[in-house]
Amino acid sequence: MQHRDLYPALVTCLALLVYFWNVLSAGGARGKHKIMAPATTGHPEFERKLRIQQNMVEQLILFIPALWIFSLTVQVLVGTALGLIFVIGRIVYSVSYATDPAKRGLGFGMGMIPVIILLLGALIGTVRLLLVDM
Amino acid sequence: MQHRDLYPALVTCLALLVYFWNVLSAGGARGKHKIMAPATTGHPEFERKLRIQQNMVEQLILFIPALWIFSLTVQVLVGTALGLIFVIGRIVYSVSYATDPAKRGLGFGMGMIPVIILLLGALIGTVRLLLVDM
Amino acid sequence: MQHRDLYPALVTCLALLVYFWNVLSAGGARGKHKIMAPATTGHPEFERKLRIQQNMVEQLILFIPALWIFSLTVQVLVGTALGLIFVIGRIVYSVSYATDPAKRGLGFGMGMIPVIILLLGALIGTVRLLLVDM
Repeated sequence: MQHRDLYPALVTCLALLVYFWNVLSAGGARGKHKIMAPATTGHPEFERKLRIQQNMVEQLILFIPALWIFSLTVQVLVGTALGLIFVIGRIVYSVSYATDPAKRGLGFGMGMIPVIILLLGALIGTVRLLLVDM
Repeated sequence: MQHRDLYPALVTCLALLVYFWNVLSAGGARGKHKIMAPATTGHPEFERKLRIQQNMVEQLILFIPALWIFSLTVQVLVGTALGLIFVIGRIVYSVSYATDPAKRGLGFGMGMIPVIILLLGALIGTVRLLLVDM
Repeated sequence: MQHRDLYPALVTCLALLVYFWNVLSAGGARGKHKIMAPATTGHPEFERKLRIQQNMVEQLILFIPALWIFSLTVQVLVGTALGLIFVIGRIVYSVSYATDPAKRGLGFGMGMIPVIILLLGALIGTVRLLLVDM
């Protein structure tokens, strides 16, 4: 791995650690409230923690490819900084959603805005390089 | 990023844009019908749009790695063309499913068939290169 | 693609094949029990097979990036071996969960433990290389 790729690799690992914590929280709430698989409902705490985990999957599938393509076609340290904001946003989201789903807005926005910038930047960066190389 | 990798990068960005549109549609329907998180049911339009989004996650996790491994081990422009068919198929799927879930077949197939070719091609391409290099 | 990257590529393809089989099983159970989209409940067999598929998505989003970063920053053949254990674990999980969700523990653990090692190894490997290169 090239040295410059270590930065998005580190951010990817940190995002996966947040997600792994979400998985453990949902699994813990399933056990605590004795909700038998394959049920996905049964207690508000479990339902919230399962939605936090599922929402993280929905974001990671967008975040990870966008982070890498942005880092490789636009600028690696800007990509890394946006990725760190995403990671912090997801921690804020997880904590606030578990307390009260109505308060998830701030963390959700802190996660979503860097993802939108990464995705649009990746698209523009890729198209620009394709045109330059023609 | 090498020039030839820009083609799967572009297709990845386009697929993520379709997915991002799916996320916005599901979020919009949640707001419109005032369905409070963490509920995932409550109005047919929201339930359809949430399933469209979830189905896209279920496809992207297969599509993105298969697209890249195919492009790197078989043929990049064939991979890119299959990827574009997938992207168009997912747009058709999203529009037709939102109108009537029973009509999702064409778009689903248009998305699924290139994914199957990409996955089997990636497997064959990888095994072939492993054997050649021995 | 470099020769050493063919090993994680092969493991990725095998994991995606297991997932594709999960998707076909869930789709088959949906058809067999005539559960109309977008419903996600209606018959225990379908609900189990849908959860098996969803659980695989939840694992793949962690597994694929961790496998690649581990393979590129720690050791590719150790990463590949851990990946193969994951793949076998997911087959055991899918078969045992479909029979009886209460018996999913062994397969789940066989899938989860290599993922944890891959993720922590990837984090340590990345940080070590960042520090070494400073």
